[in-house]
Amino acid sequence: MNEPAFRRARSAEAKQARQDAILEAARTLGRRHGIRDVTLTDIATAVDMHKSALLRYFETREQIFLELTAEGWRQWSSDLRGDLRRRERATPAEIAAVLAGTLATRPLFCDLLAQAPLNLERNVSMESVRSFKLTTLGEVELIGAELTRLLHLTEQQILDTISTATGMAGALWQMATPGARLRELYTSDPRLGHAIVEVEPRLARILTALLTGLGAPSAATA
Amino acid sequence: MNEPAFRRARSAEAKQARQDAILEAARTLGRRHGIRDVTLTDIATAVDMHKSALLRYFETREQIFLELTAEGWRQWSSDLRGDLRRRERATPAEIAAVLAGTLATRPLFCDLLAQAPLNLERNVSMESVRSFKLTTLGEVELIGAELTRLLHLTEQQILDTISTATGMAGALWQMATPGARLRELYTSDPRLGHAIVEVEPRLARILTALLTGLGAPSAATA
Repeated sequence: MNEPAFRRARSAEAKQARQDAILEAARTLGRRHGIRDVTLTDIATAVDMHKSALLRYFETREQIFLELTAEGWRQWSSDLRGDLRRRERATPAEIAAVLAGTLATRPLFCDLLAQAPLNLERNVSMESVRSFKLTTLGEVELIGAELTRLLHLTEQQILDTISTATGMAGALWQMATPGARLRELYTSDPRLGHAIVEVEPRLARILTALLTGLGAPSAATA
Repeated sequence: MNEPAFRRARSAEAKQARQDAILEAARTLGRRHGIRDVTLTDIATAVDMHKSALLRYFETREQIFLELTAEGWRQWSSDLRGDLRRRERATPAEIAAVLAGTLATRPLFCDLLAQAPLNLERNVSMESVRSFKLTTLGEVELIGAELTRLLHLTEQQILDTISTATGMAGALWQMATPGARLRELYTSDPRLGHAIVEVEPRLARILTALLTGLGAPSAATA
């Protein structure tokens, strides 16, 4: 505990720099190959560390990607709210277009959204899940405030809307990105035309219908 | 080729029986532990075979589960259409309830729906994917005929509806089934109340709004 203050600061700084480098390597590899194919060894190699040294910074491969998922939520929410805040009023179709557009331009986040409940949340400590959930629920609340201002949705309708937006962004992205081998199959066999999925227009149509229906009197009383 | 006919028949029968036993073991293990945690070795052990012998019947672990996903589509589609066919007319809320109810009562199928595009389709031969896709697209067409009769949807709206129903059934099921450890976390920390997801009511609400919105004039022209 006699460590001089400047040395502690320098070591904290070095630690932060190392953590940032690990996250940046995971981001780059995830974007290039898809999350499923990136191992802890790949990330360690990219930052020129031993796997055991890397595990002093993060619990598991999954914690690294869960950290990137939380970051994705914060950045998406910030962009989305920035757009919505500038509008005095908006139709369901306009809001759907903003939701779909801000999600579809974040392929790594879409990949992570599908992987998080299936794989990531299940291979980290309880404290990591708690912190991740608190981040996402906090962003949901902030997004909800903007949606309520524009569309007068109830709390339940906000949860339904945001879970459809993020759930379908994840699911559609996985369908739309089947790898080169399957894409070739889908385009070469005319019977498989409907297996080809485009994320943004489909997500925009689904969310337009959802938000329109939430505002319709029959849905509210159903 | 001089094998007597009765012997060929018996051997074909034995092969079929073996295949059925493998699928049944995978079904049981998948229901009990969730697909992600079932290995090829688990399945081989359950049917008392060597892994190498099992691989004479199926290409990979993923092909076994993709086969069960195709079976899930046929059975779900059959039940769903059986229900819809008995109705002369139906509101969006009624159709949504049938879609949500027939999906939520099939936990194994919901698990498989999320796993298929992420993991299963990527670890089998092209011919297995082609056959799987033709099965699902065939069922989508059959379901679509019933939906069109009741709600006058376009082909694109049918694809959007069924992909939302199956995509969200998969995504919500994964969120609703986080394992005992995480469920304990969600129920013990009052700040995490919104992390608890109930598949059927949420799916029914989302599909009610979606189908209501698809029928609204503003959505049709959006």
